[in-house]
Amino acid sequence: VMKILVSNDDGVHAPGIRALSEALSAVAEVVTVAPDRNCSGASNSLTLTNPLRIQQLDNGYIQVNGTPTDCVHLAVRELVEQEPDLVVSGINAGANLGDDTLYSGTVAAAMEGRHLGLPTIAVSLVGRAEQHYDSAAAITAQIVEGLMRSPLPKDQILNINVPDLPLDQIKGIKVTRLGARHKAEGMVRTTDPAGRTIFWLGPPGEEEDSGPGTDFHAVAQGYVSITPLKVDLTAHDQLERLEGWVKQL
Amino acid sequence: VMKILVSNDDGVHAPGIRALSEALSAVAEVVTVAPDRNCSGASNSLTLTNPLRIQQLDNGYIQVNGTPTDCVHLAVRELVEQEPDLVVSGINAGANLGDDTLYSGTVAAAMEGRHLGLPTIAVSLVGRAEQHYDSAAAITAQIVEGLMRSPLPKDQILNINVPDLPLDQIKGIKVTRLGARHKAEGMVRTTDPAGRTIFWLGPPGEEEDSGPGTDFHAVAQGYVSITPLKVDLTAHDQLERLEGWVKQL
Amino acid sequence: VMKILVSNDDGVHAPGIRALSEALSAVAEVVTVAPDRNCSGASNSLTLTNPLRIQQLDNGYIQVNGTPTDCVHLAVRELVEQEPDLVVSGINAGANLGDDTLYSGTVAAAMEGRHLGLPTIAVSLVGRAEQHYDSAAAITAQIVEGLMRSPLPKDQILNINVPDLPLDQIKGIKVTRLGARHKAEGMVRTTDPAGRTIFWLGPPGEEEDSGPGTDFHAVAQGYVSITPLKVDLTAHDQLERLEGWVKQL
Amino acid sequence: VMKILVSNDDGVHAPGIRALSEALSAVAEVVTVAPDRNCSGASNSLTLTNPLRIQQLDNGYIQVNGTPTDCVHLAVRELVEQEPDLVVSGINAGANLGDDTLYSGTVAAAMEGRHLGLPTIAVSLVGRAEQHYDSAAAITAQIVEGLMRSPLPKDQILNINVPDLPLDQIKGIKVTRLGARHKAEGMVRTTDPAGRTIFWLGPPGEEEDSGPGTDFHAVAQGYVSITPLKVDLTAHDQLERLEGWVKQL
Repeated sequence: VMKILVSNDDGVHAPGIRALSEALSAVAEVVTVAPDRNCSGASNSLTLTNPLRIQQLDNGYIQVNGTPTDCVHLAVRELVEQEPDLVVSGINAGANLGDDTLYSGTVAAAMEGRHLGLPTIAVSLVGRAEQHYDSAAAITAQIVEGLMRSPLPKDQILNINVPDLPLDQIKGIKVTRLGARHKAEGMVRTTDPAGRTIFWLGPPGEEEDSGPGTDFHAVAQGYVSITPLKVDLTAHDQLERLEGWVKQL
Repeated sequence: VMKILVSNDDGVHAPGIRALSEALSAVAEVVTVAPDRNCSGASNSLTLTNPLRIQQLDNGYIQVNGTPTDCVHLAVRELVEQEPDLVVSGINAGANLGDDTLYSGTVAAAMEGRHLGLPTIAVSLVGRAEQHYDSAAAITAQIVEGLMRSPLPKDQILNINVPDLPLDQIKGIKVTRLGARHKAEGMVRTTDPAGRTIFWLGPPGEEEDSGPGTDFHAVAQGYVSITPLKVDLTAHDQLERLEGWVKQL
Repeated sequence: VMKILVSNDDGVHAPGIRALSEALSAVAEVVTVAPDRNCSGASNSLTLTNPLRIQQLDNGYIQVNGTPTDCVHLAVRELVEQEPDLVVSGINAGANLGDDTLYSGTVAAAMEGRHLGLPTIAVSLVGRAEQHYDSAAAITAQIVEGLMRSPLPKDQILNINVPDLPLDQIKGIKVTRLGARHKAEGMVRTTDPAGRTIFWLGPPGEEEDSGPGTDFHAVAQGYVSITPLKVDLTAHDQLERLEGWVKQL
Repeated sequence: VMKILVSNDDGVHAPGIRALSEALSAVAEVVTVAPDRNCSGASNSLTLTNPLRIQQLDNGYIQVNGTPTDCVHLAVRELVEQEPDLVVSGINAGANLGDDTLYSGTVAAAMEGRHLGLPTIAVSLVGRAEQHYDSAAAITAQIVEGLMRSPLPKDQILNINVPDLPLDQIKGIKVTRLGARHKAEGMVRTTDPAGRTIFWLGPPGEEEDSGPGTDFHAVAQGYVSITPLKVDLTAHDQLERLEGWVKQL
């Protein structure tokens, strides 16, 4: 039977990780290891200056006082006896589309699985007041069953975004590329009750590159979006020009 | 005169940010905004659930109770009157080579500058007990002067790693691609003084892809490594195969 | 029916708060509001620079991203419709005897109840590897039933320490005063895996004032210790001498 | 020459600790060890689950990633070669009067000094927009000189509150007892920019016991208030009644 590590960034008590763990338990052997607190926006952050601690909850899930990346790293390296066959992260409460993926702890948990050599999936539910975790859970289970029949390469990261709709209203699955947003607006500058200035991060920018072929577009049309991700930050197409530029220094 | 925003991930009191701010002040107008604590390993994390607060120190630097990404975002959006011409992050105490860039707060600060539409540089000093911040500062100032004469595209991120050597022992500058490490070893499992189990993140894996052309190789040979980075996480070359795979679901 | 607010400092997932909530639910109407993380050593600390957030768990308990004092303050002021008749904090995993009470988040939660005008109880289980939470829970329920029959003054804080023994091996209840420890030994100075110096708080000092009449003595003899606490930090007996001293300034 | 350890709870960069360190350096040998962040409201909290780290700043002050209590404990036990003769905490930005003392990190730092067997002073500046740190610093230096001539008992804690006035407008010094406030009002319930419910601690309650003889009264009249504190939480006057009560269980 397939062994799956489930994690997330909304924390071990979020409804999305429960829906995901339960749906996958029907088709695989699941271990759930997740942050003890909401880590939305954690990106690939690591806990370096403090040690990690674990606690097993009544439902068998293990909570860690760390980030999503910490959780996947710790689970694969120290907590499971056999390396999992797959890492699934989510179901995130909210979209991870376009540029959001860079800041997302949900996607980061999946990236960490890949960094450890495992195929991984990140799943997010796209809506304003997420309700249909069961839709996203069912679709993820279906994709996992597909992977059992027909594996994808080990270093594959699938970023899945599911519209927050009843399962029978979802139109299908589209393979997409990441779109992009405009630059974010300013922050929210306000005061705390003691009168001191504070700044809250504001809403993300409007969609800029969101036409056909993008993840934004697929979800807006009622489709599940699947984007294959890779982590290669080198701008290969700029190497040559940069070599010329360096000579003038 | 060029306006530069300086930030880092080692925190506002680290020696590297001071060396960098002082060297750049000789050639440009510098504003320094950095985390109040060491944020090594922060990646592109954002502070979402708590507000940010700022405090100006005696040396004019502004400290923020947030991440490197928060600092750049807050500075550009709220703290400076005119948008800076360049964001420079560093000088990091330690390498940001190969896969490390994904977890690096130093590189993340630079990425955030680019996300806001600005050219950016991340600078790191590569050694075991960093000493020659002045070398890295001088080389960065030289590169900034090069950018004044001959600008690079707005969305450019330069990831610079400088060997920890006296300036006259550095052999030159090489344009490189990111190398890669082997998977990290296990974590350090130990106990705190009260006897409770704790886990520390262990050392990174050994270098795997570190031959000629990589950033690892350049630095090991005594050269400054400059790698142009881009942020495009879509695995474009996998889109077609994935479309075929999805049909079997 | 009596309304009881239950909190603690070990966090909402600790076995002690569950044993306590369940035992008290048999004799009263219980609401449980506790920190989302272990806050041992929190003393009377308050969260001032960040806002608090709440999350209700499946078992009905409410977790707060704050300190024990925050939890009691928030619960009484904002979360319950009717003011509780009693605040009970615990069951702490470990002793709160003598000077420990000053640093204890368990006792602080009780103090905060008193500050809001409510009678309060702090309960701790004294042992090396706490097992008999059921003993402490049963004794607390018995004391609460005693309070229903014969109330104590509103500003009363009872600090209860129960030996970690099966209920039938506990010899009885003793009313005690707080004892005292010797000064704590040094801290544990060590290095993290990266070789950087770190300091861990060391063990508390040995018992100094632990003779008959003290809480240390009662528990050591197998009795439940009940110490009435008050919060009056003025050294009334020193006022006169200090007035003389000030004249010489 | 007298050796003094200076700490605070507003953090190592606060103006009050600088004014205090500088004024005391004129009459004694001063070491300054303080939290790296604002720890207002820290009470006697201890850092138990993570290790402490230190960093020396350019001005010689040492910052610690911990609480005021951690700072005093660490400094006395590990950082100074000879035990200090006196611990002085402050100058706090704002009052520490009446019940506030229980939550105050400034007072807690002083209490920790006493716990380690040293005479201690906590100093606070009482005003809405603190300006006259120099007044509070001069008065503290005067009191320290008084202690050199005529020492007070080792376990003495002096809680000093200075009105925020020019030195020549301060009327004198009064020895006082702690007053008391009414119960605090409700918290501030609001939403963050994402629309999620958050709670901020509200302002403290109005003064209740603030007549002649109290610290509230002295400061309101333009006097420096000095309150001798002790830490004895046992309600000795309730022991007998409680013994009777326990018999009915």
